[in-house]
Amino acid sequence: MIAPTCLHLSGERFTVTYRLTGDETTARAKAEDICIEQTVEFPADLVPDDDIRGQIFGRIESFDALEWNCYQTTISYAVETSGFDLTQLLNVAFGNISIKPGIRVVRFDLPQSLTQSFKGPRYGCTGWRRLLGEPTRPLLATAIKPMGFPVTGLADFAYQCALGGIDIIKDDHGLTNQSFTPFAERVERCVEAVARANQETGYHCIYMPNVTSPAEQLIENAQLAKKLGAGALLVVPGLVGLDAMRRLADDESINLPIMSHPSFSGTYVINPDTGFSHYVFYGQLTRLAGADAVVYPNYGGRFSFSREACQAIVAGATDKLGNLAPIYPAPGGGMSVDRLADMQEVYGREVIYLIGGALHRGEKVLAENARHFRQLVEQI
Amino acid sequence: MIAPTCLHLSGERFTVTYRLTGDETTARAKAEDICIEQTVEFPADLVPDDDIRGQIFGRIESFDALEWNCYQTTISYAVETSGFDLTQLLNVAFGNISIKPGIRVVRFDLPQSLTQSFKGPRYGCTGWRRLLGEPTRPLLATAIKPMGFPVTGLADFAYQCALGGIDIIKDDHGLTNQSFTPFAERVERCVEAVARANQETGYHCIYMPNVTSPAEQLIENAQLAKKLGAGALLVVPGLVGLDAMRRLADDESINLPIMSHPSFSGTYVINPDTGFSHYVFYGQLTRLAGADAVVYPNYGGRFSFSREACQAIVAGATDKLGNLAPIYPAPGGGMSVDRLADMQEVYGREVIYLIGGALHRGEKVLAENARHFRQLVEQI
Repeated sequence: MIAPTCLHLSGERFTVTYRLTGDETTARAKAEDICIEQTVEFPADLVPDDDIRGQIFGRIESFDALEWNCYQTTISYAVETSGFDLTQLLNVAFGNISIKPGIRVVRFDLPQSLTQSFKGPRYGCTGWRRLLGEPTRPLLATAIKPMGFPVTGLADFAYQCALGGIDIIKDDHGLTNQSFTPFAERVERCVEAVARANQETGYHCIYMPNVTSPAEQLIENAQLAKKLGAGALLVVPGLVGLDAMRRLADDESINLPIMSHPSFSGTYVINPDTGFSHYVFYGQLTRLAGADAVVYPNYGGRFSFSREACQAIVAGATDKLGNLAPIYPAPGGGMSVDRLADMQEVYGREVIYLIGGALHRGEKVLAENARHFRQLVEQI
Repeated sequence: MIAPTCLHLSGERFTVTYRLTGDETTARAKAEDICIEQTVEFPADLVPDDDIRGQIFGRIESFDALEWNCYQTTISYAVETSGFDLTQLLNVAFGNISIKPGIRVVRFDLPQSLTQSFKGPRYGCTGWRRLLGEPTRPLLATAIKPMGFPVTGLADFAYQCALGGIDIIKDDHGLTNQSFTPFAERVERCVEAVARANQETGYHCIYMPNVTSPAEQLIENAQLAKKLGAGALLVVPGLVGLDAMRRLADDESINLPIMSHPSFSGTYVINPDTGFSHYVFYGQLTRLAGADAVVYPNYGGRFSFSREACQAIVAGATDKLGNLAPIYPAPGGGMSVDRLADMQEVYGREVIYLIGGALHRGEKVLAENARHFRQLVEQI
């Protein structure tokens, strides 16, 4: 038995809602286990009836049946356990229990005392519109690729897409700093190409390089990109860590909008009994980590997300989350112009449509395909 | 159709072996899809018969039936696609396809040209033994906790465990920099406590603080820990990113052994059809990311890993991987002294036994329980 303690905590708590698989006895045992495993990770019977037991232990606030063999529980934790930072918040919500089967995080509810520790999205939806000078229609994005294509060719693609009226030209997330596509050279050429197109069109297209890179170089690459004239940054939080994206977003010396890419993060959402709900991972966590838009594979494309999962991402990107700005969903992954009508039903106008390889299809040149894409969207 | 290209690649390739779920047609389609999705992410029919098609595309090297509804394929990629860094290597191996169901990475095979880009574990198994002055028996570790317990109490636990002959006293991974356990104060007190015990025992016990922290503070915390006398560092790569751990391990100004903790990473391994094999995640990737030991939940404890999964981790931690040093498995998660005999069969002497809450059980004081644990291990 350890000695009793006297903590001076505020009494404020945040809650995490979990979906638990199993019969009622199993699910209830999981809920009780979470309260201990995610906080003290210590034999509960050795903790006296004191502040640790009363305040540090997770506390089951609700426990309800959802469907056959599936329950939902909301567990609260003292805000102080989070250390008021993202890494430790994630550690308390889903650290060790990520290693236990049949537990999925489906929602965070954070009090103001916690959300105010996060700057969140610097630009958000309104920031993108201000930057791009486009008040109402859906925004348009494309990716330059394929990997292995020379920088001059990629810059020409950027030029043509900008000429055709795409708002955001991003690097494919597979382009980093390989010998065949050096980062600095690529940024320089693509910025120049987009600026040249803007001069012809009068549009405000921006180029968004992929700054995902080794830990030593992330901030440096972002600063270089900004210096060279990039208008926004693409980051893969699955690879660099959610908190590294947050640190980039918070950096006053960079001050550019960030688009989050889902590479390497799919494992966290695709198994319905484990990981995170789409709402949490691509919505709530992406905003806490400071992204201004979130790329994810649209339903019906070459990936596996359902229409409902995509709607949940939209909700997570825009629902109230303290004072954190709403951000844009950026559905992509095999989308083509003939899917616009259906997508409009789900996304309305508050969306960034991300179209990639399909712009290269057909008899027309890239700029014409881009122009056609924009015309269709302008009619929405 | 994009224009043909002329790349100057070495011709060297690394391979990733995937386990694919589905019937043969489905699995073969998945293998073919991986070759495109993980490299060019571009309609294959629009790429001419050139260097991109011939060298950048992933290439199926083998495809075999494993068991019912399950196939294994080995796919090779040009080493240059990896950019010779960990984030991009992971991006090529498992970026977008992490979002597709039924694909699991089960093995990496990396040529020397790639492994030589990684410093890997700075200490490895022999480094721990040199540091701890213990040439042969299994090494012993414990964690100070529970969260919420005052620093003076935690330091006393550290003192008692060191007095009892534990080699490595680590922070519980739930202790970061919360108001009730400030990082600097905790490190200072625990270093002092362990040094005092060492003076009494003549042992070389080390204190290993958890430096997992926001991205701005990780290196700073590690440097502070070293300055204050910490003997090693605990890091949670699931939270800070594998490459952030690698950056920490590479830092010449720190130069301490690193123990990797599995918090928040479980989702990557617990679903057998997705993510990574235990061999890859806790073995190969942990070594590429520079850790000198890897904590994971032992079979038969309160987590879900099988005995076979734990054996696979040992293999991944010690199999040849370029010139990278082998590292220690550190099984924990609810282990107790009465499981030692069985664990000896799996781990032999080349292991760090991690025992936590169980040391607090029973009538005896902590130091006596620790001494008993050590005596049992000395008899192995």
